[in-house]
Amino acid sequence: MVEGLVQRLRSIVGVRGTAASRPKQVDAWRRLLSECAEAKGGEVSARTRAAALAQTYLKLDDQARHAFLRIISLEFGPNPAQVAAAHASYQQAVGSAAQWDAEAELRAALRSARIRILTQFNAIPQGVKFLVDLRADLLRYLEEDPELGPLDRELESRLAAWFDVGFLELSRITWNAPAALLEKLIEYEAVHEIRSWADLKNRLDSDRRLYAFFHPRMPMEPLIFVEVALTDRLADNVQALLDENAPVFDARRADTAIFYSISNTQAGLRGVSFGSFLLKRVIDDLQRDFPKLRHFATLSPLPGFARWVAKNPQELAAEGLELDAAQLAAGEWAQDAGAARRINEALAELAARYLTLAKAARGGGRQPQDAVARFHLGNGACIERINPGGDASAKGMQQSFGVMVNYLYDLDQLETNVESFAREGAIATSAAIRRLARPKQVQ
Amino acid sequence: MVEGLVQRLRSIVGVRGTAASRPKQVDAWRRLLSECAEAKGGEVSARTRAAALAQTYLKLDDQARHAFLRIISLEFGPNPAQVAAAHASYQQAVGSAAQWDAEAELRAALRSARIRILTQFNAIPQGVKFLVDLRADLLRYLEEDPELGPLDRELESRLAAWFDVGFLELSRITWNAPAALLEKLIEYEAVHEIRSWADLKNRLDSDRRLYAFFHPRMPMEPLIFVEVALTDRLADNVQALLDENAPVFDARRADTAIFYSISNTQAGLRGVSFGSFLLKRVIDDLQRDFPKLRHFATLSPLPGFARWVAKNPQELAAEGLELDAAQLAAGEWAQDAGAARRINEALAELAARYLTLAKAARGGGRQPQDAVARFHLGNGACIERINPGGDASAKGMQQSFGVMVNYLYDLDQLETNVESFAREGAIATSAAIRRLARPKQVQ
Amino acid sequence: MVEGLVQRLRSIVGVRGTAASRPKQVDAWRRLLSECAEAKGGEVSARTRAAALAQTYLKLDDQARHAFLRIISLEFGPNPAQVAAAHASYQQAVGSAAQWDAEAELRAALRSARIRILTQFNAIPQGVKFLVDLRADLLRYLEEDPELGPLDRELESRLAAWFDVGFLELSRITWNAPAALLEKLIEYEAVHEIRSWADLKNRLDSDRRLYAFFHPRMPMEPLIFVEVALTDRLADNVQALLDENAPVFDARRADTAIFYSISNTQAGLRGVSFGSFLLKRVIDDLQRDFPKLRHFATLSPLPGFARWVAKNPQELAAEGLELDAAQLAAGEWAQDAGAARRINEALAELAARYLTLAKAARGGGRQPQDAVARFHLGNGACIERINPGGDASAKGMQQSFGVMVNYLYDLDQLETNVESFAREGAIATSAAIRRLARPKQVQ
Amino acid sequence: MVEGLVQRLRSIVGVRGTAASRPKQVDAWRRLLSECAEAKGGEVSARTRAAALAQTYLKLDDQARHAFLRIISLEFGPNPAQVAAAHASYQQAVGSAAQWDAEAELRAALRSARIRILTQFNAIPQGVKFLVDLRADLLRYLEEDPELGPLDRELESRLAAWFDVGFLELSRITWNAPAALLEKLIEYEAVHEIRSWADLKNRLDSDRRLYAFFHPRMPMEPLIFVEVALTDRLADNVQALLDENAPVFDARRADTAIFYSISNTQAGLRGVSFGSFLLKRVIDDLQRDFPKLRHFATLSPLPGFARWVAKNPQELAAEGLELDAAQLAAGEWAQDAGAARRINEALAELAARYLTLAKAARGGGRQPQDAVARFHLGNGACIERINPGGDASAKGMQQSFGVMVNYLYDLDQLETNVESFAREGAIATSAAIRRLARPKQVQ
Repeated sequence: MVEGLVQRLRSIVGVRGTAASRPKQVDAWRRLLSECAEAKGGEVSARTRAAALAQTYLKLDDQARHAFLRIISLEFGPNPAQVAAAHASYQQAVGSAAQWDAEAELRAALRSARIRILTQFNAIPQGVKFLVDLRADLLRYLEEDPELGPLDRELESRLAAWFDVGFLELSRITWNAPAALLEKLIEYEAVHEIRSWADLKNRLDSDRRLYAFFHPRMPMEPLIFVEVALTDRLADNVQALLDENAPVFDARRADTAIFYSISNTQAGLRGVSFGSFLLKRVIDDLQRDFPKLRHFATLSPLPGFARWVAKNPQELAAEGLELDAAQLAAGEWAQDAGAARRINEALAELAARYLTLAKAARGGGRQPQDAVARFHLGNGACIERINPGGDASAKGMQQSFGVMVNYLYDLDQLETNVESFAREGAIATSAAIRRLARPKQVQ
Repeated sequence: MVEGLVQRLRSIVGVRGTAASRPKQVDAWRRLLSECAEAKGGEVSARTRAAALAQTYLKLDDQARHAFLRIISLEFGPNPAQVAAAHASYQQAVGSAAQWDAEAELRAALRSARIRILTQFNAIPQGVKFLVDLRADLLRYLEEDPELGPLDRELESRLAAWFDVGFLELSRITWNAPAALLEKLIEYEAVHEIRSWADLKNRLDSDRRLYAFFHPRMPMEPLIFVEVALTDRLADNVQALLDENAPVFDARRADTAIFYSISNTQAGLRGVSFGSFLLKRVIDDLQRDFPKLRHFATLSPLPGFARWVAKNPQELAAEGLELDAAQLAAGEWAQDAGAARRINEALAELAARYLTLAKAARGGGRQPQDAVARFHLGNGACIERINPGGDASAKGMQQSFGVMVNYLYDLDQLETNVESFAREGAIATSAAIRRLARPKQVQ
Repeated sequence: MVEGLVQRLRSIVGVRGTAASRPKQVDAWRRLLSECAEAKGGEVSARTRAAALAQTYLKLDDQARHAFLRIISLEFGPNPAQVAAAHASYQQAVGSAAQWDAEAELRAALRSARIRILTQFNAIPQGVKFLVDLRADLLRYLEEDPELGPLDRELESRLAAWFDVGFLELSRITWNAPAALLEKLIEYEAVHEIRSWADLKNRLDSDRRLYAFFHPRMPMEPLIFVEVALTDRLADNVQALLDENAPVFDARRADTAIFYSISNTQAGLRGVSFGSFLLKRVIDDLQRDFPKLRHFATLSPLPGFARWVAKNPQELAAEGLELDAAQLAAGEWAQDAGAARRINEALAELAARYLTLAKAARGGGRQPQDAVARFHLGNGACIERINPGGDASAKGMQQSFGVMVNYLYDLDQLETNVESFAREGAIATSAAIRRLARPKQVQ
Repeated sequence: MVEGLVQRLRSIVGVRGTAASRPKQVDAWRRLLSECAEAKGGEVSARTRAAALAQTYLKLDDQARHAFLRIISLEFGPNPAQVAAAHASYQQAVGSAAQWDAEAELRAALRSARIRILTQFNAIPQGVKFLVDLRADLLRYLEEDPELGPLDRELESRLAAWFDVGFLELSRITWNAPAALLEKLIEYEAVHEIRSWADLKNRLDSDRRLYAFFHPRMPMEPLIFVEVALTDRLADNVQALLDENAPVFDARRADTAIFYSISNTQAGLRGVSFGSFLLKRVIDDLQRDFPKLRHFATLSPLPGFARWVAKNPQELAAEGLELDAAQLAAGEWAQDAGAARRINEALAELAARYLTLAKAARGGGRQPQDAVARFHLGNGACIERINPGGDASAKGMQQSFGVMVNYLYDLDQLETNVESFAREGAIATSAAIRRLARPKQVQ
């Protein structure tokens, strides 16, 4: 039966499904989606049918997928008249004993067929991953087609329920993990590219830890992962950390854990956040294994620094720098030790001001402009130290003229910091950072 | 920090938490729940706090738990004024491009703090099980306190998302399963009591199969399980099936699979159904392992039969039976072979009428009164045969005067049956059942 | 091919193989065994053939098995003439460079086809278990037929290599273990019968530990297991330990581990010992999990005590006891508290003398007569305390009039004790035991 | 205690153990080895002591290890006088009932302390691997020091018992295997070098299989592995097989399995063979998974071909070839298509003669000279086809001027072939090979 359905769908869709505009195809989808929404022939059959639809979706091209999702978004929403009626009853009942039933009725009236359809797609073998990837599609189409918004928000809300942090498993990943999983790390690493299997093996050595969150139904797909170096100092240079020839540190002697790379992997989970939980759980795990650990800090990029400097040339001038942003990014200046020292001092001051003063456009002007800063400050970390020359890679020069930053996770301060950051946008910094950020005096 | 919180809560609640009525305690809960709802101090801290609250809940007695849940239900719902405003914008936007944003806003206005609080309880180690058990509490209190309704429906909807059948794992349970898991089967078996470990082992023998659905976060808790006998005939007697001394049938020769017991185990998952999916998946698995299987059928109880007969004494009279329902349930008549034959013939006719004609009060008078019949007919099975004397246990006599029934899962007919049952309440039966159910002619 | 062989064998052997004496059958075996021994058709075929022979063996009755093993033992040994020649070369070569090759040649001449045949039986799915069970058969037949001796010793030596303690896995067994494994514990427990699954569950509670050694090729067969109670005193009564209704002790507070039952499970592994390694490894594991543990001791039976008393009535007389051994074993005296106190005092003295003075017949009169004492003293334990009334079960009364004994494993003394026990048969005891064992003065 | 021992040993041995010649050190070893051999202080202590000795061994350099092993080999052998006495009793008892005991006594007299000591080394965590590696050392020293022979043979015999094929596990290795395991394949591959992780992944694709034998105590160490390509023809070129860019074949359509690489991995297991069992088990597994498979064949190198040609220049002359062996190995001729065709024809004839006629020096002149041919013919395969130009790699040209060969495993012929090969050295070949091998007629 299902085979027949798939056949039918394929013949409609055409080999590569490019015919999204053809009305016949759209009608066929519409009918099949209705059958799913009504659970015709029972729930078991509906799932089978939905699975066939999901398989078909995978064969469509972008244009056809977009068309398919538009149908779900626009034609399977709630009925405004029913919502109006339920709402009227609800408002009338407020304050009476009937309020609570009325609330439930209103909620039911808003429950759309969209999410029912999407949930049924969960029936295919890799169903959860399918929906995460479908949302990644949706987010791309959404940029140009805001009418997909309601579908996106319903799907986000469902994914947020499914990916509740309570369901996620923290796993330590070692060189004993399946190659098929390790390969994903190489693919997903978003901060400091993993250049080879030897590079990866080095990041899994005895003085390193790599942790990831997994969903029980996506066992080979890390959702987010963090790379940690165990050491005895606040690391200031990522090339030194990643040097495959550096001697292995005796981890039992470590008093410091450096989080030097955090990567989200699933575009389709945008808005479903688990980074802060990951760090919390990783710190717990490290404390258990290494009782001597005292300091937890990051070695982080400043992804928006170069962009900000380019837009604010007056800041360069105030520092007395004669190079412009492009020249700084090119990095030739780093060859001349004397010049480099002077420029790096200036960059440290600029970076301190960027981190503490530059605000994001959205969010009412209270959020830091730098995305990485927003994340760590939101978790309660403080800006501890700025490291000019911390990342000499081409990417590091382009993003931030080689500057890196240490965020410090002082466990006793986290909650207070979270609160004052949330309430007043207060940014926790070390005294050194405050000094660096102080406005330049005209002399 | 959390330790401190637990301490604080305990001192408020008192040793066994009986002081639910004391206003101080209620105020303390209110404040803590607000902190959870607002995620004060960040999400990580909020979860920690919620975990402490959950631990406290476990120490409360029923009266205090009820009071606690009332607070969540009544005081953490949506704000009617905000809902009204969002609704007005929505109705105004209908038909315009703004409709879709407005829909999302209205949905957001309805999203309550209740579910946020409950979800955070998921943070404790056995969080999912905690919430399932909390809902079991809720359902008990709800019987007398309908104002808990909105909380219950929000929780049911969240649990339905979490226990989506796409997340469940079908496992075959054998004698190699952990004793701690097998023990749960003994505890949860709801149809034919498992009397001993030897009885259980017999139900896991080579001519038997036992399958269960599991949630990945409740690995030792079967959610629902079904017991199957592999045989070469339509089984008509459950004592014969459960006889530990009966010879083991060579399963490779089996052409028939008998589902002789299906038990739901989690009271807190009422309304979240997976029985039909279980049977579908089990049939698939059996077909793979035993390609000779041709027939899939149940040997099922009629749990409401005796009750129906007691309420409809005229049916007994029409059959010319002189015993009343209580006498039938007592079962002495079964000792006299001649009488038993006559009475069993009458019971077969009564049972056929009960199954095909007696309707449930709710559901518009179209649903069968018998819960087991509703389940199997809803899955597309047909009533194949009635077996008087099929269950000679005390429970079997009490429930149905010993009558059992075979529902047949004819894979080619399932979808059609589901449809006509859903559309018109049509009950699929064999010709033999139709003959038995025919009204008695006055002679 | 193999099917054909099995057929052939079966037709020869007859349905139940009772025809061991029939010459035809014996000839057939002889031929097949020769083919195995010569690895005719290559090693792969030889294993296949051996597997078929092993399957056949399983269908034979005791008489036929005995005959079969005799053939292997008597007809597949080394060739005396070849041995003589190799020996002559060896003796001639002693002291010269040729000695080492000559030694190897002599060894090769002694290598028999017997062990080659037996090893090939390893090819059947449960091959190791098959050979262990075959040796159990062999040991039974050996009692009456010493000519099986060489085969037994070769097999023992091969099993000793295979079951080298370095290959065994120590596993802790909990209530989460497979029921099929736990069932074996019930079957194999040799000291204090496990009466029910509830009794077993109690022995796996949080204040108990149960450890077993496993061979990697017999994963569901414990080879030996020990039951441990975690407590805060030297336990003196086994019924108290096994009381299912006794409160659970908080194991984190335990300073004492009591080994209250040790059972060997495989008759076929006689002479291959791992008991002392088991205790060593268990003590290591317990120390890791419970750093507060200070004392490791047994609560052990005296299996030969009653027998010794029965044979030495003068000992009873010396204690002034009027009951004979049979009356003591009957146990009625235990009802009268006053009498019991007096008798138990006498039994303590008798037991102390039995343990320290009674010697086994074999072993040159230096080994203790009591097998359990031999085991623990050989491991370096000392006799710490005697507990009259320690085992009120029928078996306990029969074996030892209810007396039990604590052997203490003082980790600092073990090696010294092992040495002096091995060298001079010295028995380590506490001062209290020495006092009890002192000969009665004539008054 | 053990710590102390290790300390003591280290101080004697010196930091890198170079002092093997110093008599003090040798005396210390001698004493410790004696303590192990006598199991002083009990078996448990003896193992602990042996483990310390094993750890020390790992720190020694080659010279010291050799010295250490010499002590074991020469000083812990059997006592010739005891052997003589036991042998005399044995010969006297032959034919009498006492023969069997006497045989056991003689065997016991030959049992040396050497193997006891070595077995105790099994106590360290990676004990089995330690002994396998120790034997690899031994085999190296043995080349120059034949007096290590008896120790080697005793160790080989023990390892043969431990690595009995009945204990080995056949595992299929996929891209889901631990990276730490896959890395070993890259390291151990002995036939066609694995150049990169991408190359390895290609060998694990859906039209490939890789199987290995494992010992339960060496779970991350493949003992031997075979690489298989599933295809629809007799593969004739290994570069084509290993081409990462070649399209993936649909394995369900495969009728032929090509074994294109077999590697032994443990030098220390020389003489313990499991290659033939591996192929047998792999064929069984493949037949289960791919019921359409009809042909099982290898694509194999001729490792000794070029050497044989170099030693037999007259063969080149007989073929009318003007190139000598060195020129053939250089491979320039392969650039000229016309020349290459002619030369390859000649090489095919030469290879056929080499495989069928050239005999190994040892083994009485009946064994083929080519080691790979010996292995496959010994397993019952036949020489099916010769493929000039089958391996264009530098190694392929050096070894065999690019020639490869297919050995065919015809399951119906295996046993017969094994027998006639074993009995008369008969080499099974296809008709084509027989034609090629025919001596050149003088024209």
